[in-house]
Amino acid sequence: MLDFCKCSCVTLLTTADEPESHILCDLNEPLVDHTEGQLFLNDTFKIIMEEVLCKGTDIKHKVCEWKEPKELALLLDLELRATGEPQHRLLQRVQDVAKYSIKTSHPRFMNQQFGGVDYHALAGRFLTEALNTNLYTYEVAPVFVLMEAEVLRGLRQLVGWTEGDGLFCPGGSASNMYAMNIARYQHFPEVKSQGLCGLPRLNIFTSSDSHYSVKKGAAFLGIGTDNVIIVEVDEGGRMIPDDLDEKITLAKSQGAVPFFVSCTSGTTVRGAFDPLDLIADVCEKHKLWMHVDVRYHGLSQQHYLIHKIKVYVKNIFLIFGISACPQDLLRKCHSANATYLFQQDKFYDLNLDVGDKSVQCSRKVDCLKLWLMWKAVGSIGFAERVDKAFNQARYLVEQMKKREGFHLLQEPEFVNVCFWFIPPSMRGKEGMADYQDRLAKVAPVIKERMMKQGTMMVGYQPLGNKVNFFRMVVFSPLLTQKDMDFFLDEIERLGKDL
Amino acid sequence: MLDFCKCSCVTLLTTADEPESHILCDLNEPLVDHTEGQLFLNDTFKIIMEEVLCKGTDIKHKVCEWKEPKELALLLDLELRATGEPQHRLLQRVQDVAKYSIKTSHPRFMNQQFGGVDYHALAGRFLTEALNTNLYTYEVAPVFVLMEAEVLRGLRQLVGWTEGDGLFCPGGSASNMYAMNIARYQHFPEVKSQGLCGLPRLNIFTSSDSHYSVKKGAAFLGIGTDNVIIVEVDEGGRMIPDDLDEKITLAKSQGAVPFFVSCTSGTTVRGAFDPLDLIADVCEKHKLWMHVDVRYHGLSQQHYLIHKIKVYVKNIFLIFGISACPQDLLRKCHSANATYLFQQDKFYDLNLDVGDKSVQCSRKVDCLKLWLMWKAVGSIGFAERVDKAFNQARYLVEQMKKREGFHLLQEPEFVNVCFWFIPPSMRGKEGMADYQDRLAKVAPVIKERMMKQGTMMVGYQPLGNKVNFFRMVVFSPLLTQKDMDFFLDEIERLGKDL
Repeated sequence: MLDFCKCSCVTLLTTADEPESHILCDLNEPLVDHTEGQLFLNDTFKIIMEEVLCKGTDIKHKVCEWKEPKELALLLDLELRATGEPQHRLLQRVQDVAKYSIKTSHPRFMNQQFGGVDYHALAGRFLTEALNTNLYTYEVAPVFVLMEAEVLRGLRQLVGWTEGDGLFCPGGSASNMYAMNIARYQHFPEVKSQGLCGLPRLNIFTSSDSHYSVKKGAAFLGIGTDNVIIVEVDEGGRMIPDDLDEKITLAKSQGAVPFFVSCTSGTTVRGAFDPLDLIADVCEKHKLWMHVDVRYHGLSQQHYLIHKIKVYVKNIFLIFGISACPQDLLRKCHSANATYLFQQDKFYDLNLDVGDKSVQCSRKVDCLKLWLMWKAVGSIGFAERVDKAFNQARYLVEQMKKREGFHLLQEPEFVNVCFWFIPPSMRGKEGMADYQDRLAKVAPVIKERMMKQGTMMVGYQPLGNKVNFFRMVVFSPLLTQKDMDFFLDEIERLGKDL
Repeated sequence: MLDFCKCSCVTLLTTADEPESHILCDLNEPLVDHTEGQLFLNDTFKIIMEEVLCKGTDIKHKVCEWKEPKELALLLDLELRATGEPQHRLLQRVQDVAKYSIKTSHPRFMNQQFGGVDYHALAGRFLTEALNTNLYTYEVAPVFVLMEAEVLRGLRQLVGWTEGDGLFCPGGSASNMYAMNIARYQHFPEVKSQGLCGLPRLNIFTSSDSHYSVKKGAAFLGIGTDNVIIVEVDEGGRMIPDDLDEKITLAKSQGAVPFFVSCTSGTTVRGAFDPLDLIADVCEKHKLWMHVDVRYHGLSQQHYLIHKIKVYVKNIFLIFGISACPQDLLRKCHSANATYLFQQDKFYDLNLDVGDKSVQCSRKVDCLKLWLMWKAVGSIGFAERVDKAFNQARYLVEQMKKREGFHLLQEPEFVNVCFWFIPPSMRGKEGMADYQDRLAKVAPVIKERMMKQGTMMVGYQPLGNKVNFFRMVVFSPLLTQKDMDFFLDEIERLGKDL
């Protein structure tokens, strides 16, 4: 029963140090002031335009405004208090958040994962946020139920499939987990109700260069990271099909049940493409589910990859933040039939209630940004971006070869350009005992310097027995040759004294 | 190796029906026109303001513009094509998407899950989208790494905890899965590497009124839906601790290993609160992990609930789109230590790289909207919203009791008001043989009528042996007494001839 005396929330929410206060509720007035709120939103929009989209994409301004964590925490005054603040103070906070955040759309942000700003996609994202829709039934999301189906259809069409099913998921890791779960369900439908207890040990196969989400997913799904069998890669980082075949046979002989091979098209670090056609033969031989993890974010690359895959194989399971799989499997595998959402006596086609295909209940709308961007540039526009990214990567590689001190890890297969920068003091001294140790320290120092000066950002990492190297991802449609030249100059400038 | 002849993406991306075209790439120019793009974003913002935030929250305008799926698909012209469209056509599309989407912030949208618009939160969401940050390292998300920690600290403070750990997850279902996975890891750390194979059968306990994500999560995590043991509820929908105790004992005697009890504070349909203090005793007796699923979206309610929970118990595991759990467990349970992200030779404190605590790799920023809203209204402002929601619910119940034909399912414990509407033709005829069958058909017809007329939206569902009833969630800070009165009048108007 509602007990309004005891549960006065004002009392409950004040902390011990604060005097209790009483708030008089006027039930005849809404608590939100639309005029004031819209003014605030309007002012925020202006700040976003100025700080994030103008300055944040302008090479005359910094990529990042580095602050030590303690200093930044003080600057931002993050603490949450009992009383609210006036609008002008809040706008200053919006300004500060923008100022000290990394400008991921800046042409000189060349770290992994971001591909510059697309204004149509961003407009779609703003509209998505404002509409605040939950994509689970036609009742609450009529436009987006239909739109998601159409975007998935368009994507399937690009790979040449006339049927299939799919969903937008919250990221690539979630997509990989979906794939594993569906494949497991197809092999052992009883796993949904009975779980893994009593089943034989299941094995997943993936290459040593694949994304770490395969292991994370295996742990989460109760399969276990030890049951992810690592397949060797060749010198270019591509899975070796013969090694896969041998390891599947070995696993079977040891009593495990292989069920899933996770290939990668565009590996995380080197951008390598596993040989899908040969792997498909191995999967067919052993009757395993073949999954392709198309790892790169950014539409253009994804679209290119879809076609690259299409050329190679058919009948694969494709995931790229979106699942595309045989019809009905998603629903059968994930449905829980909650009667409060998926009533059977609705006045429209219940197949439009897509929520039960997902393992989430509430699901954000992710299709609008892609749909609007696709409408704006067309698939030809995507192609143009891909073409350009490849040409930029080629230009960068050519320029690197003309300069001293840039040593490519390998000829790039994709738009990841991996290289060591050898400072002048180390050139020609490859034979020295501590050469690798010294080389390992170069990238971290250059990275620290570029971030503290805010001139650009690029990622580095070790890989196997290869010490720290830079990975330049030539990705953003904002990039020009000037940015490539700047990038090389800047690496030289930051590392010349090392 | 980059093979630029073969991989011309223009060729690859044109479909069979279209002539191949050649695009000349100018590497000296970015592909995105900032001026044109910003103009488009500006125009989109104006449409959002007008259609979504002004008309979409104005009772003089419709909550929804119902169209049959086929008609809507035609109106939206969803198809994705090879060529792009001009800006004015794209703006018309933005307008159409806004027009035909449900206005979830409208005062007369009384379906579950939405609590009206908050302009500060929305400003935070716009800024989040524009910054396009991925929350995994301090390097790429300095502001948000610190901000998330502070928001979690603030939330823990509300429940009286001085330490703990947490993450923002993509929704309540994901949070429930996190909780199960962490609890499983705490009981059996070897599960991360070895999986469930070889472990005894694990059991989860939850009430019959709990959210369906518990079962979905159990299936996904390889535990299996049959291993979710359903505990009986009392007449108000609250878990019965004695039944829980008996079922745990029974499960043990059958060789299963109980490890997790998922309680609910504010059940999905009836808004009931499981008796946490008594359940805590049972969990302590059997040494089980106690998890509380605080089901309601909308900050005010959550904050109320936190305090309600605080009053009842301590040492519980609390999830509400955010996990709060013992320190280090998230990292130990979920880490994969990818060397390309979490390099050990960074120039700042590696504890700030929070990405490895998550099962996702890429993770959207969810803290900014809550932080900005909290800064704007303070915890007193949240309290005010809760106070008001409870008062509105009380007002609605009082008014219902004054009218004929409204029959409460039970006295509400929370802001869910569940009721049957008995049409005039059925009043006083409870003894009739087909009474329940006829009553079951009332809510669906009224719902269809309100949606087709666009006057309001409210959810209905059956529950156990109770036939379809309405569930009015008195939630939004935009609601006034006039809206409550309108709601009752409208139900009467739409159902008077049934």
